[in-house]
Amino acid sequence: MGEVQVPVDAYYGAQTQRSIDNFKIAQDINKMPKEIIKAFAYLKKAAALTNTDLGVLPAEKSALIAQACDEILDHKLDKEFPLVVWQTGSGTQSNMNVNEVVAYRAHVINGGQLTDKEKFIHPNDDVNKSQSSNDTFPTAMHIAAYQMLVGTTIPGIKKLRDTLDAKAKEYMHVVKIGRTHFMDATPLTLGQEISGYVAQLDHGLKAINNSLAHLSELALGGTAVGTGINTPKGYDVAVAKKIAELTGLPFVTAPNKFESLAAHDAIVEAHGALKMVAVSLMKIANDIRMLSSGPRAGIGELFIPDNEPGSSIMPGKVNPTQCEALTMIAAQVMGNDVAISVGGANGHFELNVFKPVMIFNFLHSARLIGEGCVSFNDKCAVGLAPIEANITAHVNNSLMLVTALNTKIGYYKAAEIAQTAHKEGKTLKQTAIDLGYVTPEEFDAWVVPKDMVGL
Amino acid sequence: MGEVQVPVDAYYGAQTQRSIDNFKIAQDINKMPKEIIKAFAYLKKAAALTNTDLGVLPAEKSALIAQACDEILDHKLDKEFPLVVWQTGSGTQSNMNVNEVVAYRAHVINGGQLTDKEKFIHPNDDVNKSQSSNDTFPTAMHIAAYQMLVGTTIPGIKKLRDTLDAKAKEYMHVVKIGRTHFMDATPLTLGQEISGYVAQLDHGLKAINNSLAHLSELALGGTAVGTGINTPKGYDVAVAKKIAELTGLPFVTAPNKFESLAAHDAIVEAHGALKMVAVSLMKIANDIRMLSSGPRAGIGELFIPDNEPGSSIMPGKVNPTQCEALTMIAAQVMGNDVAISVGGANGHFELNVFKPVMIFNFLHSARLIGEGCVSFNDKCAVGLAPIEANITAHVNNSLMLVTALNTKIGYYKAAEIAQTAHKEGKTLKQTAIDLGYVTPEEFDAWVVPKDMVGL
Amino acid sequence: MGEVQVPVDAYYGAQTQRSIDNFKIAQDINKMPKEIIKAFAYLKKAAALTNTDLGVLPAEKSALIAQACDEILDHKLDKEFPLVVWQTGSGTQSNMNVNEVVAYRAHVINGGQLTDKEKFIHPNDDVNKSQSSNDTFPTAMHIAAYQMLVGTTIPGIKKLRDTLDAKAKEYMHVVKIGRTHFMDATPLTLGQEISGYVAQLDHGLKAINNSLAHLSELALGGTAVGTGINTPKGYDVAVAKKIAELTGLPFVTAPNKFESLAAHDAIVEAHGALKMVAVSLMKIANDIRMLSSGPRAGIGELFIPDNEPGSSIMPGKVNPTQCEALTMIAAQVMGNDVAISVGGANGHFELNVFKPVMIFNFLHSARLIGEGCVSFNDKCAVGLAPIEANITAHVNNSLMLVTALNTKIGYYKAAEIAQTAHKEGKTLKQTAIDLGYVTPEEFDAWVVPKDMVGL
Amino acid sequence: MGEVQVPVDAYYGAQTQRSIDNFKIAQDINKMPKEIIKAFAYLKKAAALTNTDLGVLPAEKSALIAQACDEILDHKLDKEFPLVVWQTGSGTQSNMNVNEVVAYRAHVINGGQLTDKEKFIHPNDDVNKSQSSNDTFPTAMHIAAYQMLVGTTIPGIKKLRDTLDAKAKEYMHVVKIGRTHFMDATPLTLGQEISGYVAQLDHGLKAINNSLAHLSELALGGTAVGTGINTPKGYDVAVAKKIAELTGLPFVTAPNKFESLAAHDAIVEAHGALKMVAVSLMKIANDIRMLSSGPRAGIGELFIPDNEPGSSIMPGKVNPTQCEALTMIAAQVMGNDVAISVGGANGHFELNVFKPVMIFNFLHSARLIGEGCVSFNDKCAVGLAPIEANITAHVNNSLMLVTALNTKIGYYKAAEIAQTAHKEGKTLKQTAIDLGYVTPEEFDAWVVPKDMVGL
Repeated sequence: MGEVQVPVDAYYGAQTQRSIDNFKIAQDINKMPKEIIKAFAYLKKAAALTNTDLGVLPAEKSALIAQACDEILDHKLDKEFPLVVWQTGSGTQSNMNVNEVVAYRAHVINGGQLTDKEKFIHPNDDVNKSQSSNDTFPTAMHIAAYQMLVGTTIPGIKKLRDTLDAKAKEYMHVVKIGRTHFMDATPLTLGQEISGYVAQLDHGLKAINNSLAHLSELALGGTAVGTGINTPKGYDVAVAKKIAELTGLPFVTAPNKFESLAAHDAIVEAHGALKMVAVSLMKIANDIRMLSSGPRAGIGELFIPDNEPGSSIMPGKVNPTQCEALTMIAAQVMGNDVAISVGGANGHFELNVFKPVMIFNFLHSARLIGEGCVSFNDKCAVGLAPIEANITAHVNNSLMLVTALNTKIGYYKAAEIAQTAHKEGKTLKQTAIDLGYVTPEEFDAWVVPKDMVGL
Repeated sequence: MGEVQVPVDAYYGAQTQRSIDNFKIAQDINKMPKEIIKAFAYLKKAAALTNTDLGVLPAEKSALIAQACDEILDHKLDKEFPLVVWQTGSGTQSNMNVNEVVAYRAHVINGGQLTDKEKFIHPNDDVNKSQSSNDTFPTAMHIAAYQMLVGTTIPGIKKLRDTLDAKAKEYMHVVKIGRTHFMDATPLTLGQEISGYVAQLDHGLKAINNSLAHLSELALGGTAVGTGINTPKGYDVAVAKKIAELTGLPFVTAPNKFESLAAHDAIVEAHGALKMVAVSLMKIANDIRMLSSGPRAGIGELFIPDNEPGSSIMPGKVNPTQCEALTMIAAQVMGNDVAISVGGANGHFELNVFKPVMIFNFLHSARLIGEGCVSFNDKCAVGLAPIEANITAHVNNSLMLVTALNTKIGYYKAAEIAQTAHKEGKTLKQTAIDLGYVTPEEFDAWVVPKDMVGL
Repeated sequence: MGEVQVPVDAYYGAQTQRSIDNFKIAQDINKMPKEIIKAFAYLKKAAALTNTDLGVLPAEKSALIAQACDEILDHKLDKEFPLVVWQTGSGTQSNMNVNEVVAYRAHVINGGQLTDKEKFIHPNDDVNKSQSSNDTFPTAMHIAAYQMLVGTTIPGIKKLRDTLDAKAKEYMHVVKIGRTHFMDATPLTLGQEISGYVAQLDHGLKAINNSLAHLSELALGGTAVGTGINTPKGYDVAVAKKIAELTGLPFVTAPNKFESLAAHDAIVEAHGALKMVAVSLMKIANDIRMLSSGPRAGIGELFIPDNEPGSSIMPGKVNPTQCEALTMIAAQVMGNDVAISVGGANGHFELNVFKPVMIFNFLHSARLIGEGCVSFNDKCAVGLAPIEANITAHVNNSLMLVTALNTKIGYYKAAEIAQTAHKEGKTLKQTAIDLGYVTPEEFDAWVVPKDMVGL
Repeated sequence: MGEVQVPVDAYYGAQTQRSIDNFKIAQDINKMPKEIIKAFAYLKKAAALTNTDLGVLPAEKSALIAQACDEILDHKLDKEFPLVVWQTGSGTQSNMNVNEVVAYRAHVINGGQLTDKEKFIHPNDDVNKSQSSNDTFPTAMHIAAYQMLVGTTIPGIKKLRDTLDAKAKEYMHVVKIGRTHFMDATPLTLGQEISGYVAQLDHGLKAINNSLAHLSELALGGTAVGTGINTPKGYDVAVAKKIAELTGLPFVTAPNKFESLAAHDAIVEAHGALKMVAVSLMKIANDIRMLSSGPRAGIGELFIPDNEPGSSIMPGKVNPTQCEALTMIAAQVMGNDVAISVGGANGHFELNVFKPVMIFNFLHSARLIGEGCVSFNDKCAVGLAPIEANITAHVNNSLMLVTALNTKIGYYKAAEIAQTAHKEGKTLKQTAIDLGYVTPEEFDAWVVPKDMVGL
């Protein structure tokens, strides 16, 4: 395949350089996610230690490998991983990139030189021992996905959920107009309305948690096609245990390695939960931006913090920018979901070769949701407050309070009152009395917004 | 493959029955679209007549075939096409269904009996002569798609576009508040706002029209793999001309038949235009439902017709139901687009075998948009009218009129006025004067909504 | 709103007719799913009985209502539900359609006439008592979705899963070539390969099951905006219990009714699981069609049943038609997922008004997967069998067996053998010996396909 | 809004810094695309020069502004644009970032200091003169999209198209087996097969070109809501002409500015064309990887270049990695399409606030397709070659040549020959003779693969 020129000070080698040369696609913007590199460091270390435990790799070598992996985890070798997502669909080249960097760095740690022709640690024979790209890359996918979910996504959603829950409790008795079909409806309280958002996020968190079990299954030990060829006995269970130990997460060996290599339904499944959360966030952020619309020609029931000047031409304008960022994130996650599904559906035989695009989109979504929720929480949700004047005016002015009369005077008379008041631009009370259906006293006794919210 | 039992009075035969028996999937709801059957009738007739012209089919037979096809077009044989979308991906079984029905019906027209063992017209040797499922089905796809677009979709969009255009002109001088970020902004007129919708639909129509050229290319004559095996010389050009003649549409033979069988990018392309229109319709219908929200706690600037009681519990409630139907259609079309893309991307070698699912979704979208636009037009758009009281109050009350002062007193002073008025709940004019930045006369001269709309 | 003309013999009334007149969109192909009508029958009956239990509806009336509902469940009134999906986004008109049919039919059961001006049972005051469209329609959505999943989808997937599991066991020792990147790889057994499909479906079933809890939550009792206005005390819990009793499914009242009306994340969540299964089915069906490709110029390792003649022009051709139907279904489900997500994300305030399009797509997918799996199972999977001659030839001929030598002679020498054999078109064994790296005895002892599969 | 700390040496100011502080979302991976910054440089320069031409900005100022813009175009200020996609949905903060950098840099060019309190050039009053974020950002979107399409996407696709076209011509007479339903079919030539890919790409290019007209329309001059408030007369036409001049591209002012701000259907439309190309590329790359599968247990009809070692464990394995990268790109583009559609559909009133996510995905797709095609071309397509031995064996061995006998001995006898040969594992010729349907001489005369391809 010809010679390749590797930079003299690079810890990576020919395999990595060849990938750089062969895939000149979006190299400045679509690097293999750093979370995957980190996950590889955990798994290479775990594999080396397990190999030693099982007697197939000298302890001296595994110690060096582990040390090099720790340096990756400490971000000392960040610039050694230049490859992009758009490479081989098995992620082989990133596996080889890690093999090279770990081997050559270990060699240098051991006192060698990068220019030594023979290195003490060999990328394939040592670092990749008892492994294949085909089982390491999906293992790295699950480690990275799991870590992102529990480290960023879930805490971010929870933070927002907790803020909204506090708001729901704080405003549980602020009676406001309800809106269905974007039209005035019977009243509820602001706290009740917000409690619906909390319920959405709680369900979303449950859905994400439901998907963790599948993600906890690691392909490692399946090697090339899932049969575990070239691995020592007991390796798959032991290496998963070691990874669990190193990461502090409940990883186990996949009961069926054929599925783990050939399909990435765990990623599809977990991203389905992320997409569900995106759908929830779109709804919540839309509500908040609409409720805070105005200041004078909108709905104007909700105050949101002013974080920045909103317009370069319209002075005094403050926009719901955090809502906008969050809904854009929701759109992105909805798109990423399709990319992941298309990739997941197009695996063939023993190997799915849409691995990089799947994990790239997954990590993107998981991070966007996590960090998006924190941003939305810190810069918007914590400052939410009712604009009581507008809330009160809207609820008192509403025709839909007539519903309270349904059980008193029947559906049709109630409807007549509402329609007449609407047509004549009058209040419900005046109209109800004018039509002779109720007395003023009855109206005041029967139509009480705070009695209509079921609290 | 064993015996099959065909109903004694059915014009279809064993091949059709076998498909009924083999594909018991959503048989009551996912019939092969009737537009495809109609398209097949055109193409079978055209093929027969062309075969006779080219000397490979006796005129007697083609006349009988043509007569049977005309009966299909006259809806006399509607119940003879029981197959579903979920069959072979080439649509072979629907091609055979048509072959059988045409042959057997032609045989009966010719004085034969359905129970005759030997029929005068043979489904394969006569009706399918110079054809293969592989070129007939994609031909039927293009005929059906083209007919639906020009017969239903485009006229439907145009009808709505023309109504909106008339409204735009009618309300070109109704000054109203603009809204950006769902927040009050500088004014524009209702007519200008609506003119944006018209421009969207005009662009959408242009995009659909751009896609017709690709759809006008017919696969017929490519037969099994695109090489045209078993067709007489000149057949492909002649049969396309005949179809053009029969349908009155500008069909031509595809310059590259390999593409026509192996890929359905024409469907992907044209549906891309439909999806673009769906995106436009979602925006337009959303705007209209939001502008008509209320009656008392919403935006309330637009009157829309009351078509039905809106709620079973809330009397007097009238909902933007046509907007809701249209936005649901938009959601459906956005989903259909993905189904079509997934199908289009997964063809292999000489044949794409997602043909039925692609055309099923295409026709669904094209019809929904066409009929949805007509419904929205007739029951909503034609009745749109400004609610002038609210429009005037909103624009006069707005803080954003301050923008008119930018060029007079500078951005920062203008901003100060707006912010102060906002904080103190005062009018812009009072605040501007109180702050000493303008005189009352200057304010009245400079801040004139109707001068701010660029007309 | 003017007069409407209702057919004289229709059990439905003006509200239904008005919807027919107002929404002339795809009326012949997009009827409101019959599963929703059935679900409404359960809930109307449950509501009536609960109303009586709680003292707000005479027992005589609830008995009549229950009887009318039972007639719906017995399919005696199927033609009375003519409305389409493309109506108001709350499904109000279908709720009213059911109210009218139940009321008028109950009136007739009670000895009245359809033409009586006053009916004994009133659609709104009796049949819809303690309800709103806003809580009945989402309740019907959950009932219908749950019933479809447990009645059709899950059993269909399980049937296929069990067949594949039996095949996996039966062929657990049939050694074959593995394929990664569509290229020859190390061997595995046919049973192992199929076991991966079983694992995929097991995970899919688990994901569907995980989504049932959210679907089991019923909105009923929330009425117009979630507050439960106009319902008797204890109604929500009691009516859910009654529905659970009638359907035999573990429904409960939703702990947060605001979420149940304003969002349909349960549908989004559960459909995410269906989409995951679609992704799995696409992979499985693709593998099977590719493995059965040929007969002479393909892979040809798997026999699948011949169900129908494959081509109208190419005699003797038998196609993987069940695979094609199943992959088309997968494409449809992937599209439906987007329609559902777009609908789910665009709810506003107290009510999501994309209800009909969401449940339409959900039921479509759930049914297609269930029935598609049964069809694929019965007409394809049960007949799967290895074509042993080809399997043996492929595995013995493979260069990838060289992997077995990795641990004996090292990666680089093994690679040299494979590359040389490839270049010279020779067998591995001959090449290995010619290169002097192994003896014939060593080769035979070391390179044993059945020892390479980890069993 | 409180104080913000801007780095002492930054050319950007408080508005930019505030956005950094307020949107801590994926800051290392989702920067506002550099193509947008470049487009802004063109438009700010054009706006300044036009403002001077129209007498509203001193020539001295516009010269300084133009000079600062040129420095941006020369990549001298790359590090001054730190903002991310996830900001306000109008892109206001990126507009302000550019305003600040241009103003402050112009001030320094003019001899000022970054620390000067008063600057000679003001971000809002000078750089943003006659503009609003609301018209500049969509203008930058169109400039960047158009430039990417004509600079990267179209040339990339064309390069691949031309290579495939040359291959189609080169191999126009290499007869091979056709495959439909992944099953053996009648023959065609390799050149014909490849010509189908060329036709796909030609149609894709046509679709992209069709979308350029809409993209050529610039929003600039619409300012805040489309009315053009605060712009001098003739500005919109003049500034578009200036941009056309500076970029060498045929930009014009949008005939309807309301559409240009409130909707981004041009982006939806053009990305629809990109998605169509992605669908084509998925099909083409799939075919090529499948045709090159093997080396011994696959189809093996196509040679593709060996660019890198394919496996870390399986020596000698060479994988279709360029196909894999390209199909992953196709999956990404299909996902991006949904993100764009969701964003496009959710604009409200006078402004769509999904601008950054829409252009982010658009530019991503456009670049991936362009660079992906070049990579695929250079490292795969240029090296494609038939593996003649396998091609010949497959075609000669095929049962489907029997189709040639259809017109000689009839469909049913031909089918019998094929089925018998299949069952008995014999050649067609032997079987045909054994069955007594043809003589050896007839067979040789009638069944000639190269006569079956229609050339």
